[in-house]
Amino acid sequence: MLPRKLDSGICINNFRASGVRNEEYGVAIIMNDEVCETAGVFTKNSIKSGSVIVSMNNIKNGFQAVVANSGNANACIRDSVRNAREMCNITANELDIPAKNIGVASTGIIGRELNLKKIRELIRTATSRLSNSWEGSRDAAKAIMTTDTKIKEISLEYEDIKIGAICKGSGMIAPNLATMLCFITTNANLSRETLQNELRNSVENSFNMLTIDNEMSTNDTVILMSDKSEDCDVEDFRYLLNYATIELAKMMAKDGEGATKFIQVEVRNAETLNKARIGAKRIASSALVKTAIYGENPNWGRIIAALGSIIEFDFYKTDIIFKSNGRSAKIVENGNVMDINDAKEILRGNEIEIIVDIKQGKFSATAFGCDLSPEYIRINAEYN
Amino acid sequence: MLPRKLDSGICINNFRASGVRNEEYGVAIIMNDEVCETAGVFTKNSIKSGSVIVSMNNIKNGFQAVVANSGNANACIRDSVRNAREMCNITANELDIPAKNIGVASTGIIGRELNLKKIRELIRTATSRLSNSWEGSRDAAKAIMTTDTKIKEISLEYEDIKIGAICKGSGMIAPNLATMLCFITTNANLSRETLQNELRNSVENSFNMLTIDNEMSTNDTVILMSDKSEDCDVEDFRYLLNYATIELAKMMAKDGEGATKFIQVEVRNAETLNKARIGAKRIASSALVKTAIYGENPNWGRIIAALGSIIEFDFYKTDIIFKSNGRSAKIVENGNVMDINDAKEILRGNEIEIIVDIKQGKFSATAFGCDLSPEYIRINAEYN
Repeated sequence: MLPRKLDSGICINNFRASGVRNEEYGVAIIMNDEVCETAGVFTKNSIKSGSVIVSMNNIKNGFQAVVANSGNANACIRDSVRNAREMCNITANELDIPAKNIGVASTGIIGRELNLKKIRELIRTATSRLSNSWEGSRDAAKAIMTTDTKIKEISLEYEDIKIGAICKGSGMIAPNLATMLCFITTNANLSRETLQNELRNSVENSFNMLTIDNEMSTNDTVILMSDKSEDCDVEDFRYLLNYATIELAKMMAKDGEGATKFIQVEVRNAETLNKARIGAKRIASSALVKTAIYGENPNWGRIIAALGSIIEFDFYKTDIIFKSNGRSAKIVENGNVMDINDAKEILRGNEIEIIVDIKQGKFSATAFGCDLSPEYIRINAEYN
Repeated sequence: MLPRKLDSGICINNFRASGVRNEEYGVAIIMNDEVCETAGVFTKNSIKSGSVIVSMNNIKNGFQAVVANSGNANACIRDSVRNAREMCNITANELDIPAKNIGVASTGIIGRELNLKKIRELIRTATSRLSNSWEGSRDAAKAIMTTDTKIKEISLEYEDIKIGAICKGSGMIAPNLATMLCFITTNANLSRETLQNELRNSVENSFNMLTIDNEMSTNDTVILMSDKSEDCDVEDFRYLLNYATIELAKMMAKDGEGATKFIQVEVRNAETLNKARIGAKRIASSALVKTAIYGENPNWGRIIAALGSIIEFDFYKTDIIFKSNGRSAKIVENGNVMDINDAKEILRGNEIEIIVDIKQGKFSATAFGCDLSPEYIRINAEYN
């Protein structure tokens, strides 16, 4: 049985959300009536936004609300931590809850002063619009967008467990998450330790397998809040959380800056899980593979060179398969090159799957990415 | 005293060279009257061209000649090793020297059959044109070009030590060398072990600090041949070899596929040499930094995020300086952002130097790269 789709976005059960924007910033708020059991995964970049530092500090208290802004990363400025605390204080005041139970996240340009006066106004307006509705969730999702072109949200139910989530991220997505914000709500009655473990593992299979341009931001934040209203089996929760985070990772890959094609790379039958993971990510992040897919050019040599640059394998045992739109073409079988015309046809699709079966073990992993187009360069040459 | 430029290319002393091309392939030959003391550095990619495998095997015998082809990588085809041996045999026959004293190198598309009949014809023509002249060296340099737009060669003299070199490489240049071929001749009377150590160290500071698009090829080859005619001090040789390989690395960076600007990144005062090296390379290979430079956009936040993704440092102690055309602008000082208008002006130059002084130790390293332009994508979407 597949999870059932809900019409709530992040606003499952009693969760409320809202979002507002002006020309410069966006602000989203997500809240619950009670303090939630809370787990979080944050950027591994040694240079962290003050917002990340404050959230990492507050998370042990559990969050009742999260406030997030777009338009400014609140990073590499001296007042960064103070700004983040002040965002929590303003939100605490408006919502009449303790500041220590508030998470904060930021995304946008690095090293520019944050205009707290404007942020305060937006937090006030967002507070007044909090709503337990799909619309509230959508407004929140819109408010945190930067170069995203599409709203990213999901809400699912499986064995009475609910998960709602919104996220943003399109450029800079890379190993160890990057300029991505993801907020997840659930009703699963699990301990903080269990939620933290499950979130960490789920991120390894989803957001950490996502690569747009190999960058890692100062601001990456994934927060999971549970109202604990539903007793559940941890296996069921794991299934649902993995399902949701992989769907969100795919949405981000499809919305990669300048992307014209979504690329999914599976390395099959590696000796270890780590080899499968780094192999799949290496292929999905290869500039030469990405430009070949953009050019609809089945250049399997680049796939092999990319994989060989990071793991040992025997090319003469290897199969390479391209898939799209339900069609499939084996372009390499046991190191023998097959007809490439089918593969060329398949590469005309918008969603390309590359399977590299190296037949050396039993571990497989899938990475998500997109092609590299001139549009990526246009966006990033101009972004200020 | 700086090294003196010679007008010989690779043809120092008695070294002879030649190069020929047809529509499909190019072939270059470099040879000496005697077997040379020979050192080599080869790709670390686990998938190696047969040409690399055969050279790695023959090198212990010393090379009297090297034969190199462009147009086909001789990689990921079952006959790859046999093809490489056959190229040595053909060359041995033509030059009347043992095949075991011949090095072989290939560059071009992966996974396509090599037409040995055509290669044989080109080797014959090249043999007939061998010449101890700058022209012979230039023909050889031209014959190994692929997407290169410029001939890359150097010849220098310092304290009676001579070094001549030709190389090719423009795309795929990345950590651990990539689709680069470099042939170096010298008269330095040093043992094979010393030549090997010096070559290895020199490659670490030059070709391995070069990044165009983070790819690593199946074919990278650097070969150093000495006729041992000049007794010398190893320190002098080291100085000259480093000088030559860094100049060649810069030539390759400047000829990066689609490059409009050369970028040199120095990380200063890191705790360890390795941290300085990986930090400088990380910045020089960041797609976001490269597109910012393409757009002449002094987005120092991307520099900090790239560096922070790979090493720990204190932003509030860090200086960032941009240099070009003899002008210099400090855009960040101890984590404080200075005026960016000077930096904008400087980024209009064609050769950009970025210095990131993290003031944590005494080790510095420099990486070489180029910007990322839409032209890179055009070249690589179409290359077949």
